[in-house]
Formats: sequence, structure tokens, C-alpha cells
Amino acid sequence: MDTDETLPGFADLGFARVDHDRAQRQGMPEAVYAPGKTPAQCAAIVRELLEHGTGPVLLTRADDLQVAAALASAPDGRRYPEQPDPGELSILSWRSESGRRGEVVVVTAGTADLPVAGECVATLTAYGFAPTLLVDCGVAGLHRLLACRKQIDAADAIVVIAGMEGALASVVGGLTSAPVVAVPTSVGYGTSLEGVTALLAMLSSCAAGITVVGIDNGYGAACAVARMLP
Amino acid sequence: MDTDETLPGFADLGFARVDHDRAQRQGMPEAVYAPGKTPAQCAAIVRELLEHGTGPVLLTRADDLQVAAALASAPDGRRYPEQPDPGELSILSWRSESGRRGEVVVVTAGTADLPVAGECVATLTAYGFAPTLLVDCGVAGLHRLLACRKQIDAADAIVVIAGMEGALASVVGGLTSAPVVAVPTSVGYGTSLEGVTALLAMLSSCAAGITVVGIDNGYGAACAVARMLP
Amino acid sequence: MDTDETLPGFADLGFARVDHDRAQRQGMPEAVYAPGKTPAQCAAIVRELLEHGTGPVLLTRADDLQVAAALASAPDGRRYPEQPDPGELSILSWRSESGRRGEVVVVTAGTADLPVAGECVATLTAYGFAPTLLVDCGVAGLHRLLACRKQIDAADAIVVIAGMEGALASVVGGLTSAPVVAVPTSVGYGTSLEGVTALLAMLSSCAAGITVVGIDNGYGAACAVARMLP
Amino acid sequence: MDTDETLPGFADLGFARVDHDRAQRQGMPEAVYAPGKTPAQCAAIVRELLEHGTGPVLLTRADDLQVAAALASAPDGRRYPEQPDPGELSILSWRSESGRRGEVVVVTAGTADLPVAGECVATLTAYGFAPTLLVDCGVAGLHRLLACRKQIDAADAIVVIAGMEGALASVVGGLTSAPVVAVPTSVGYGTSLEGVTALLAMLSSCAAGITVVGIDNGYGAACAVARMLP
Amino acid sequence: MDTDETLPGFADLGFARVDHDRAQRQGMPEAVYAPGKTPAQCAAIVRELLEHGTGPVLLTRADDLQVAAALASAPDGRRYPEQPDPGELSILSWRSESGRRGEVVVVTAGTADLPVAGECVATLTAYGFAPTLLVDCGVAGLHRLLACRKQIDAADAIVVIAGMEGALASVVGGLTSAPVVAVPTSVGYGTSLEGVTALLAMLSSCAAGITVVGIDNGYGAACAVARMLP
Amino acid sequence: MDTDETLPGFADLGFARVDHDRAQRQGMPEAVYAPGKTPAQCAAIVRELLEHGTGPVLLTRADDLQVAAALASAPDGRRYPEQPDPGELSILSWRSESGRRGEVVVVTAGTADLPVAGECVATLTAYGFAPTLLVDCGVAGLHRLLACRKQIDAADAIVVIAGMEGALASVVGGLTSAPVVAVPTSVGYGTSLEGVTALLAMLSSCAAGITVVGIDNGYGAACAVARMLP
Amino acid sequence: MDTDETLPGFADLGFARVDHDRAQRQGMPEAVYAPGKTPAQCAAIVRELLEHGTGPVLLTRADDLQVAAALASAPDGRRYPEQPDPGELSILSWRSESGRRGEVVVVTAGTADLPVAGECVATLTAYGFAPTLLVDCGVAGLHRLLACRKQIDAADAIVVIAGMEGALASVVGGLTSAPVVAVPTSVGYGTSLEGVTALLAMLSSCAAGITVVGIDNGYGAACAVARMLP
Amino acid sequence: MDTDETLPGFADLGFARVDHDRAQRQGMPEAVYAPGKTPAQCAAIVRELLEHGTGPVLLTRADDLQVAAALASAPDGRRYPEQPDPGELSILSWRSESGRRGEVVVVTAGTADLPVAGECVATLTAYGFAPTLLVDCGVAGLHRLLACRKQIDAADAIVVIAGMEGALASVVGGLTSAPVVAVPTSVGYGTSLEGVTALLAMLSSCAAGITVVGIDNGYGAACAVARMLP
Repeated sequence: MDTDETLPGFADLGFARVDHDRAQRQGMPEAVYAPGKTPAQCAAIVRELLEHGTGPVLLTRADDLQVAAALASAPDGRRYPEQPDPGELSILSWRSESGRRGEVVVVTAGTADLPVAGECVATLTAYGFAPTLLVDCGVAGLHRLLACRKQIDAADAIVVIAGMEGALASVVGGLTSAPVVAVPTSVGYGTSLEGVTALLAMLSSCAAGITVVGIDNGYGAACAVARMLP
Repeated sequence: MDTDETLPGFADLGFARVDHDRAQRQGMPEAVYAPGKTPAQCAAIVRELLEHGTGPVLLTRADDLQVAAALASAPDGRRYPEQPDPGELSILSWRSESGRRGEVVVVTAGTADLPVAGECVATLTAYGFAPTLLVDCGVAGLHRLLACRKQIDAADAIVVIAGMEGALASVVGGLTSAPVVAVPTSVGYGTSLEGVTALLAMLSSCAAGITVVGIDNGYGAACAVARMLP
Repeated sequence: MDTDETLPGFADLGFARVDHDRAQRQGMPEAVYAPGKTPAQCAAIVRELLEHGTGPVLLTRADDLQVAAALASAPDGRRYPEQPDPGELSILSWRSESGRRGEVVVVTAGTADLPVAGECVATLTAYGFAPTLLVDCGVAGLHRLLACRKQIDAADAIVVIAGMEGALASVVGGLTSAPVVAVPTSVGYGTSLEGVTALLAMLSSCAAGITVVGIDNGYGAACAVARMLP
Repeated sequence: MDTDETLPGFADLGFARVDHDRAQRQGMPEAVYAPGKTPAQCAAIVRELLEHGTGPVLLTRADDLQVAAALASAPDGRRYPEQPDPGELSILSWRSESGRRGEVVVVTAGTADLPVAGECVATLTAYGFAPTLLVDCGVAGLHRLLACRKQIDAADAIVVIAGMEGALASVVGGLTSAPVVAVPTSVGYGTSLEGVTALLAMLSSCAAGITVVGIDNGYGAACAVARMLP
Repeated sequence: MDTDETLPGFADLGFARVDHDRAQRQGMPEAVYAPGKTPAQCAAIVRELLEHGTGPVLLTRADDLQVAAALASAPDGRRYPEQPDPGELSILSWRSESGRRGEVVVVTAGTADLPVAGECVATLTAYGFAPTLLVDCGVAGLHRLLACRKQIDAADAIVVIAGMEGALASVVGGLTSAPVVAVPTSVGYGTSLEGVTALLAMLSSCAAGITVVGIDNGYGAACAVARMLP
Repeated sequence: MDTDETLPGFADLGFARVDHDRAQRQGMPEAVYAPGKTPAQCAAIVRELLEHGTGPVLLTRADDLQVAAALASAPDGRRYPEQPDPGELSILSWRSESGRRGEVVVVTAGTADLPVAGECVATLTAYGFAPTLLVDCGVAGLHRLLACRKQIDAADAIVVIAGMEGALASVVGGLTSAPVVAVPTSVGYGTSLEGVTALLAMLSSCAAGITVVGIDNGYGAACAVARMLP
Repeated sequence: MDTDETLPGFADLGFARVDHDRAQRQGMPEAVYAPGKTPAQCAAIVRELLEHGTGPVLLTRADDLQVAAALASAPDGRRYPEQPDPGELSILSWRSESGRRGEVVVVTAGTADLPVAGECVATLTAYGFAPTLLVDCGVAGLHRLLACRKQIDAADAIVVIAGMEGALASVVGGLTSAPVVAVPTSVGYGTSLEGVTALLAMLSSCAAGITVVGIDNGYGAACAVARMLP
Repeated sequence: MDTDETLPGFADLGFARVDHDRAQRQGMPEAVYAPGKTPAQCAAIVRELLEHGTGPVLLTRADDLQVAAALASAPDGRRYPEQPDPGELSILSWRSESGRRGEVVVVTAGTADLPVAGECVATLTAYGFAPTLLVDCGVAGLHRLLACRKQIDAADAIVVIAGMEGALASVVGGLTSAPVVAVPTSVGYGTSLEGVTALLAMLSSCAAGITVVGIDNGYGAACAVARMLP
């Protein structure tokens, strides 16, 4: 397969090939997935993207050392959560977009799903959306969800974030004609199987046309929404 | 461990030890599980239970040959379903009880759950209940379930039968204070994993106090209800 | 939770509660999932939806007897595939919509993925789209995919259908900014694990923002697209 | 689906929607599941339930910081275990009920099942029961169980708690006509598979009418009993 | 690694290397595992073992065509079961030993375990034992097992054959000091997982010193006993 | 990513894109995987490859109808096995190469592994090798393998084909410095888990540098050898 | 089921029912499984067994605190390993037997299997055997095993301890007519699946009559041998 | 099976049998797998191999204490990585070969795969190769891979190292006729299942003739290459 000589379109840092072409191709620039990278590598890739790329830059699932190195190198990043618990991972964003008009609702089954929802909201915000977050609407008390019908009816896209049995995705999917992206979380213990139960349940939903991303992947759900909405 | 000399309390047919003690011990007599038994063995155990035991007699998951042999030997059995599809298994009952007062509601998520519901209803009927069957109340159209609030509120026990993601169990569990026995079914394909997904979801339900029986085990759910209600 | 007295909005056929409300709520009417229903039940639900509902009507995964009963009752249904192999399941549609403007591309990794692609295309067509089908673009010969860059670049949504290792979803996801719905198929043997391998691979894709539906669920992918596009 | 304007029935704390309706609906108020919540969130939800709700309040699976925050905010809580090991989780209860008349027996296979049994007993006690705890009755020494026949025969409901192969549930189920709720525990190593083996064994029990809750879910088993008994 | 020139000790039939050395090495000659072999191959290997080997010869898991070919070639084989059901596999034996003195008890949990027990008993008989078969002693009716205490106490080795939750192995293991070989069977449905549940339960048994063979492997259990007893 | 205008290099048959470029790229032309293709599709792709491509052509895992259609269209194909059992799949080859000099040994653990070995040998033969097949060298009788040391020592590559516990791969890997490609087969029952046990065992082998292909993938092992040897 | 009034035969310590009957029933007294018990509970059960029971007393899988408490209470216990690594669990024995005549060989595939082998040897020693330990005989270098043929030929029972692919069990099983008890270990990483691969391989062994115990269960293997030999 | 008296060919250190024969048999000497060995054992085996064996010596997956002990005993070892992160494992090599002529390319999907790639490169280097490392060529940005076509076309063997969905192996396999050894890594979270997803995907690849080693087994991939190339 012959290919055009001008092909590169990426910067080779030795330990990483930073894809400057991606924003044009996928509509969003490469995000930096922190696990398995040294703090210095994280910082260097972020700097490369800020200096030679365009659009928002994200560093996901970063630990404290990776956060510190990245912020030392590019101080105007925004961290979520602002004050993480010991051991909790963070997402950082630089050069956020703004003004995207789609109404995005992020709804969680419980309070414990908040870290995943936070990653999703931070990503959506970096990509220019102003999402609405509805917390703790699990199906054991349906009236908590039904009290939010106005927001659900107005949504252009809905992200449903739930662990345990993940039933919230099916119920929301049955209430709306908007696209629904379901995120299984690893919330729960024993038979929740670290999120596998919610994942399988969401994939087997009786509500037609729900789509699913990987376990705890709030970032991926936000990217899916960014692909769907103008 | 020394044990009382009068211990037996069962009949040894050579290929089976028919437990005549069980009705007294467990509150319901031994049911005959047909798979793996020859038609003649099925017929002989049923006859033994009818002749020397008391209470209702059940033959579960019987194929056509087993049904024919059992009915030839004990013709007054009642078969469910009355006209099975080719290859469909049946449940037969003899000497049914009557007049048990508990209100039992059996609710299914879809039409395809009917065979499991039928086994459950047939068992409950044999044990003396007059169960109410609510079909096709899946959560993708919640109003179908909410239209049955009267029956649900009046129930002394509810059996929820659902395949795919099994979310109906959580929703019903959130609406009632009665005991809820959830039966996962093998309805669905692909990620439904022959019922495993519904099973895991029901065990991980966010609605507190739901209990679960094995996949497609409508008989077991009925027995669980029989243990709970007078 | 009190609910409005006018709540029903469905027809109770005894063995099914046909959800006439769904088109309004979810943007597409209830589809009839054939497995586990008798031919007569399939025919009755289809008739009920045609007589008292609106919009396209679908009967999915129907065997020959179910197809025959449904077509006897509502003869103007369109069957896919037109001439199924022995034992192959069909999808039927009645009262198709037309004129939906989104460009939808359905791309398969191999020829053996065609039955799932066919279910997807038939559903999209019933819902008013005119999808483009690109067959046999697996990554073992990338030039086959790259030859279709024009169609991919023009797409408003792309459905990627692949079995075995499902790598096509990642490659397509890396080439486009449109929403990508990935459908794992049960094509392959041994370690393909009936589609589980492709499912896991698609959920773990390094291309951000891909969403996934259940194994072999071409119908669900089409519904997801219908939620996304006007 | 229209719903009554008075619908709410919950308090929105921002990070949680506290379900004040649940006691009326499910017969027991919402319990607070601590994992994934900050100590301050735990304390606030407990206080909300104590101030504006009725009935017993439970905080389950709380670590030391969560316990401290909750007790600082609502000092009259009762903690189990009273002196936890380092890293061991606790259950706290406030405003316990009393005087429920059902005889509940909680039986464990081994000493190592005691933490799960403790959660179950604490919940039952909060809900007004006075349960009997029988420890270390595993089937490798059946006489230890048979020595408790009097308590078993007198029980209105029995909770069986066992890890490893979980055989105790089948044996108890064969001895009694009372409802049996089986709790698989993660006790054991290797092939015990963190409780999955006991779970599968209990679901496949040859003793008819046993029901099962999730792995290590002593709280859920207690709730199931509370649904069954007056 | 140099090896002795006289090494062979097997006959090469082209499609099989018949191990004439095995009786001397392992104490029992090679058995012929029928699945995957043509009828002619089965017959040829049996004939080779009869003509040039010593000791009992077994053909296991043979279908009707394989049985017919083997008996045509070596007519004095003994078939178990004598009159198999359609599709049921058989075990054939030639040149059985006799007079081995160990008392072997084979006990099954249910009637449906009889085919596996039959394979075990046929193998033990070919190897010279006169085993005692106790059928249908499942733990849901413990008195059926306790009525056999005399045989259990007299046994030099016990084979326990059980499907579903396999609890019988733990109970028997707790009653005897003899070696216990547990055989999980694929009896049951749903959560029995084709014997995996019984397998895991037996491996996790709380009764010390139980050993386990593969699912449905009655032949293997008999061989294990033959290794243990003189 | 711009790509050369001359890119295609494949023929679009509508239902398949036949990759005429592959022989040049991968060193072997595209093989036709029959499952999921109609007989007419199989025949058309084979004809396309014969008419417009070069090198050997293979049709793998074909059933009788697919074989008949392909041979009707291209009669000089060679079928393996020559006389398949009812339901057994075949591999067909056309335009075989010859004269490749590497010594390839294919060794099986048992007679039942012969169908997979046959697919491997047929593919190697079509690609120009003259492989040596050693059958039934399972580790329960090591002398059968050690008798073949001459062939093993002379091999340039060895394919080890084994089901059940797959131990033969480790033993062969310990005896030779040649590349070893291990093929797990689905031979066995119960805990053999349709080849998964052998697969896992081969991947975990203590003999360094063994590589593994998918379950029953004799074709893939042959292709791997073709990549390794000149 | 009536049972003898003299039934107890155990001591109820509140948190444990110590089974003083077990030595008589199972031929070996109850061993104390430390995980999940407090140090004080461990010490109390050991003391109870020493004071009111007979025969060897074992405390298995004890951590440093449990060891210290038990030795403080019963100082003449023997610990294995004598100098454990930080975090390594120990087995303690008191009142060992001696003089049992059977020749027991314990063979490991690698050095990393030594902790499991140690538990096995310590148990065998406590039960009166004088086992021979052969370390690091994995099949990647078969000559290391074959150099031990004298010990293997002389053994009355062999325990094979192996992780990774567990092939050693098949090879040893093919060399001896003595009973072989296989212990899969959690040695290895990745596809070794914490011992599951070795477990499955050993259960699927092509060497007839091998039996298997749970993962890392060196204690259980020793008990199995103690049941087999006088 | 009689064997030559000169058989040993290994050194028995008590805790290990060091296989001095292996270099001759397998073409590479025994490597020391550190996990489960004490630092002193690691050092002693390394010293034994250096003193009485030939060829390169490797110590794999060693922690800091094991590294320190080995280097104290044999100071001229080379460590990779040179400055490991806290808790990161190392590989050490002594007496490396040089001058092997094959062109080996090691390509990774991401930066996080570098530790596995490092183990592979260190092993290849010790065995005399001069491998080329291409980092971060994942399929989400195909141009990064296509920019390396020259190196790929020149390779005699390619090692592909990828986590998540592992699609890189299929894409590389489709571009080259050289042997491709795929190494799944445990990079990723949730549905990446610790490398199992990449493993299954690589085994199911649509690119013919790819072979696979165990998860994270960079060492094994290097050994496989060493078997293939002169």
C-alpha cells in the first residue's frame, strides 16, 4: 500500500508519537491517558499538544505526581476533582472550548457514581458543552428520576452512569427519544463484579437503541456525545 | 453420629430413593425432576408418591415421552402447557391442594418469559394458591407496570420473571414492601448470556431485600413463596 | 407514587401489552422480538400495532412459521433476507418511513457479517434512511477500507459490524469524527467466543468515543442511529 | 407518562436525593451505602434521614472516617462490630425498632463468616427482630448442626451464611419448611473464587425453594426477612 | 537426553500409537477414548490391545457405530448400559479382571447421575472390583444417606457422584476416614453451568482431603480408586 | 491521511472484496473462510482468486454444499479429508506450490486431534512444504514421543496439536531449539472447556518461546510456519 | 429425622463449635483455618483441641499475630516456614504423630511452588509420614524428573505441585501406578489466571486416574494422602 | 522407560535443579524467573549458571531485593529499566551474546506498553540481536504506523505489543510477510480485563499466521524470535 510522502502529521517524542492530525480526523485532539506514563512523559506530551496542536487538551486518570508535573509544565490546567481524596485519580484540561449548543444531561444512579460522572462532565465542558448533572436517580426510588422529566425531555443527548445492576439505563432509554450513552461503573461489591454486571445489563437492555462504553469510562461517553452533537 | 433406628422414611426403588418424609420436613413433598430419568422411572416415582405419600405431586421439565409414561400410569395429571410446542418441556401435577390464602402476583418482563411463568403458576396452583399473572411489563414501557399498581400493592408475595437485563426486579422491588422473588430467564441472545446477565443484575439490585433463584427456575420461585406464606 | 388516571396507553392482548405510547416517547414504535412467541402471538401483535399505532412496524428474528403467520395476517410486509437459508432468521417491516436525510454508512469486516448488516440496513430503511453498505473491509487488507474514504468522510453516522477480533471499529473510529456504533458479531470460532472477543475489544478501543451495542444486534445499532440523527 | 405534581417525596442534597418515601413504599427506609461517599456526605444523609424521615437509619460498610463523621453528627448510633479490626468495615444504626415477633435464626458455616453474620444480625435488630445466631455449623461435622434442631424447627425464617462450597444452605433447606435465605460469603481461597462458588452452589441447590442474595450481603438477607415476616 | 534403544514399547497403527507399556507403568492398560475416532479406528485399537497386550481393555464414550464396529471385531465385549437410550454413549470392556478385595462404594446424589455412575461401576468391575452402588442420596433428604452408614463405614474407598451444587461430597467426606473421590456431573440446568458449579464446590469443600476428577469423568474416578487400592 | 490513487488492488464482488494484493503483502494469498458464506459466494471468490490472482487458493471449513459448489466451478481442487464423516468440514486447495525446503513436523497428542492436524498439513502442502505427521504422542506415554527424537531434532519448525491439558507443547518445547507453534484443540469434554484449557496451558507453558494460535486453528499454525521458513 | 440424644460431641466456644468427634469420624482431627479468625479465637480453638481432643493439631494459613497468639497459648507448636518472609502465611503443628509407613513423594515443578509444598510436607509430617521432597522438576527439562525415577517408582502416593500449565501432573501420572494427587498453584502471571489454568489442565489430564485438590491447597493434598495410606 | 545412566545434566541446589543442558537442547539457557524465589535463591542460581553453564543468563521480573542480591553476587549484570519506578520489576542479563543478524522490530501500541517492550528488547539484546523499537503506533492514528513502513518491510520478525483491544497485531499482520509474535499487555482498565481482551483479540485475528504469547510476556516473545531466526 503506497502512501503519500507527506504522511507523518505527528511528533515523535521518542516515548510517544503525538498525533497532531487527530483533531482534524476525529473532531477532537488526542487525550493523554496517564496510567503507565512517567510524570515527565505526561508533562511533555501535554506541552507538545499545547504548543503545536489546537483545541482542548486533556490528561486523564492522572495520579498526584503526574498532575504536579503537568501543572508545573502548563500551569493553567483545570483539575477535576478540585480536591481529590487520597489515591483518587484526576482529569486535567487546558484550552477548553465553549459555546457548543447541544443540551447534554448526565444522570447517575447513585452518589458513588460521582467520580465517573465528574470525568464525563469535565470532558464535556472542555469540549464546549454546558452539561446538566442529575445525581442519585436510581430505580429503587423511581420518583427521583421522574421528578427530572423536564430536563430529560429537553436533552439532545443523555449519559446514564450506573453501577450495580445498571437498570437506570433501561428506564431512561424507555423515557426519551434522544441518544442514550450508558456508562457502567465499578460501584458495588460481590456480584457487581467490578462493573461487569452493569455492563452486561446495559448491553442487553430491552430499551432499543441504547449504546454502551467501557466500565468507568466517563471520558469515552463524553467523546461519544461530542461525535453526535454539533 | 448415631441415628435413630426408625430412620428410613423413604422407599428404595433401586434407581431412586423416594423421600416420603419430605412433605413433613420441608412443607412440600418431593417433586420429580424429569431430565436424566427414563420415562418408566418417571412414571414409577410418580406412582410411588401418589400411592404412599400425601400432598401434591409434581413432575417437572418432562419431555413428551416422559409425560406420556407418567399419564399412562397416573391419568389424572394436569399438564402445563396444555399444548406444548415441539420440543417444549412440560410440568405435570397431581392431587393439587387448594384454598391457600396468600395473594401471589407473578409478573413477567416479556411474552417470551411465559414458559417460566407457566411453570411457576402451575406449581403455585398445585400448592393451593390462586396466583395473578401479569405479562409483558418490561421497564422499557414503565406505564404498563404502573397500570398494575393495585395488584402489586395487594400482593403478599411477588415473583418477578425477566430475562435480558432483568431490570424489572429492581423496579418492582422499589414499589412494594412485600417479599420479591426474582427469577432470571434465558430469554435474549448474545450478551444476555443465557440468563447470566439477568441473574447477576438481580443479585446486584439496588432495591434492598430482593431474593433470587436459579435461571429459568419458575418451580423454585413457587416453592420459595410456599415457604413464606401460610 | 401517584400516577395519572389516563395512564395506560397500551393494549393488553393477554399474552402481551402492546405499547402504543412508545413511538411518542422513544421516537420509534415498539418492535416485536419474535423468539419465544408463538406464530399467532407474533401475528396478533403486528396487527395490533398496524391497526392502532403509527409509524413503521418491525418483527425481528422471526423463523419461517412466525414469518408465515405475520404475512398471512398483514401481507404487505417486506422480508429480509428475501430468500433466507434454511434455519436463518428474518426481519419483516411494514409501513416504512422515508426521506430521512442523514447519511448512514454500514461497514462490515467480512462477508459472514452480512446477516447482521442486513438486519441493520432493513431497520434503517424502515425508519426512513437510505444507508450505504460497504462489505468486507476487514483490517487484514486495509486498502479495502481506505478505498472507501469518500463514503466514510461523508457519513453522518457509521455502523461498524465485525466479528473475530473486531479491530475494524478502532480503525474506523480513528478515521472519522462522526458517531461510530460498533456491533460485535458471533462470526468466528474458538477464541472468538461467540462474539465476546469482538465485544470486549470494541469496548476497550483506543479510538475515543466509539459506542457499542450487544452481540449480533444489528437492529439495536440502527435504533441508536435513529436516536442520533434527525 | 404524566405523573402527579406532588411527586417529589425526596430531599435533594446536591450529591444525593434522599428518598423519604421509601419506608412507606418498601416497608423500610433507605439505608446509606457508605463506599464511594465522603465522610461528610455520609453524615449529611444520615442526619437528613433522622431529621425528616421515620424508622431505623442504617449506614452500611463504613470505614473509620465515615463512622467518625456520622457519629459526630448523630452520636447515638450503634456500631457493629463494636471494636473492628484495622480496615474492617462497620454498620451503624440509629432509631432501631423493636418488638417484631418473628423468630429469625442466622446460622453460619464457620467462624470466618461472622462479619457477614454480624451485618445481618445488626440489620435485623435495627428492624425490630431478636435473631438467634448459630455459629460454625458447617457440614463437615453435621452433628453440630443437628444439635440445633430445636432452634431450626422453631424458626419463622432462616438465614444461612456460608462460603467455600456453601453446602450448608442445601442441608438446612432440606430440614425445614421455613423460608431460607442463603448468603454466599467470600470466605475461602483459590477455587472459592471470592464467593462465586458458594453463590452458584446455593442457586443450584437440590433443596427446593431456597432463595439467594448477593455475595457477603448480610444486609440484603436481613431486608429480605423483613419483607417476609410481619 | 539419550534414551535406551529398546525404547518403543508401543505399536504404531498409523493413526494411533498403542501403548503396550502402560499396564506395567501405570498399573492399568491404555483405555480407548472413542470420541474423534472412526469406528474402524476404535475396532483396530481394541483388537491390537487384545492381541498384543494384557489386562482389561476398555472403549469409553462410544456411540452406536463405534460400539458395533468394536463388537464385530471383538465380540465378547460387555456393554454398559446394556440398552442405551438413543444418542447415549456406552462403555465396553473385554478381558475383565476379578478378585480385587477392596470395598468400593459408589454413591450418587440423584437418579440422573446414573450414567456417570454406570461408567464408573463398569470400569471398576473391569479392573476386578465388586463395587456397591447407592443411588439418590442427595442432601435434601439426609436420612437417605444416613440409612447407608453401614456400607459407608465399611468402604475402603468412596466415589461420590453429584451434579447441581455437589454438596453430597462434603457431607460424605465429613462422615468417613476412607479416601473420597468426587465426580461432578453436568446434571442440572442454568446456574449448574454444565457441572462447573459442582466442580468448584467439590474443590472448595470444607471436608478435608476430598479429591476431585473432571466433570462426568466416572472412568477417571474408577482409575483413581484402582491406583489407591491393592 | 492521503493515499495513493492506485490504491484498490482488490476486486469488489458486491458481497466480498477479494484482496489480490495480499500474496505480495503477506506472502500468502487470501484464503476463503467458508462459514457464513453461501455456496455460490464461496465458488465465486475461489474463481476470482484463480482467475485474477496468483499462488495457492484455499477454501477452509467448508460444508458439503460449499465444497460441491466450489468444485463445480473449479474442479481441480484437492479436498481434505478425502472422505469426510457426515457433518465434518473440509479444506480445499487449488494451484498448490511445491518445493519449499523447510522440514516441518506436525505432532498430535491423540488420534482425535487428526482433523485439526489434517487442516494444518493440507495448508502446509498447498504452500509448498512436505510436512511429517506424527500422531498420538501424548505425554501419558512419553516413550511414544521420545521414539521420534530423530524427526524432532531435524525439524526447522514444529506444530504441536493437542487438546485436554495440552501438556505436549511444553514437553516438545523443552526438547528442541526450533520454533514451536502450539494449536489447542477442542478435543475432550467437561473441564477441557472446548479447548480453552489447552489454550491457557499452552500460553502459560514453562518452556520458553512457544507461541500459540487460536483453538482448532490448524490453518493459522500452517500460515505461521509459512511466515517463518523460506 | 430423629437423632441420638448423645449427639453433640463438640465444644461450643461461642464463636466456634470445636468438633472433637472428627478424628474418629474422618481419621484426622479438625484443623484450624486461620483466615477470618482473630488471634484470640485461633489460640482458644487450638487450646481446646489440645486439652480435650486427641491426635495432631494444625493451625493453617496463619499470619504473624495469629501465630504469636497461638504459640503464647501453646508454646510447643512447630512452625513452617521457620522464618517466613514478611506477609507470608505459616502452618503450625502440635502433638505430631509418627511412624506411618507409607512412602510419600512430594514433587514440585518449580522453586516458587515451595510454600505450597511446605504446607503439604508439614501436614504429612504432623500426621506421621516422612515424605520425600523433590523440587524443581518441571517438564521443560524432563531429565530432572527422570533422574528421580527411583523415588517415584518406590512411592506409595505422590503429590504433584505445579503452577503455570501444570503439565507435570500428566507426566508423573504417566510414569507411575501409585495414586497421584495434583495441587495446582497460583504461581505464574497473566494467563496462569492465579492457578485456574493449572487446575483445569490437571482435571483434563490425559493420564488416567489423577485426582485434584483446590488451588494452593497443600494441606488438602496431605489429608487426601492420609486417607489413602494406612 | 529405561534411560541413559549419564542422564542428569543439571545441578541440584536443594531448592532448584539448574538445567545446564538447556542451552544445547532449546538453543537458549534456562532463565531465572524471580517471583516466589528468595533473593539468596536468585543469586545462587544466577551464580551457578554463570560458573558452570554457557551463554547469556537472565533474571526476569525481579524486585529490588532480588536485584540487589544477584548483583552483589555477580556484579556485571545489566539491569533494565536502569532506574525503575518504585515497585517496578526489572530484568537483569549477564554474558550477553552479540552479532545475531536478523532484523527484529518491536512495535508498541502505546507508551504504557514500554515496560513489556523493555523486557523483550533486553532479552533480544542478551541473545545477540539489535532490535529496533517503534513506540506508540496504535491504530487510532494509523499514519503513525504507516510512517514506519520501511522498518516493517525490512524486518525478519516483528513483535507487536499492545493492550486494550490489541488491534495493532491484526493491522501489522496484514502489512507484512514476516513472522509476527503478538504480546497482549495488561494496559487499560475495565473491559480490558487485565490483558485478556487483547489476548483473545490477537488469537482471533483475521490476519493469518499471527502467533501469540502470554499476557505481558515480553521475555517469551523474544525467546520465540530467537527460535525463529539464525
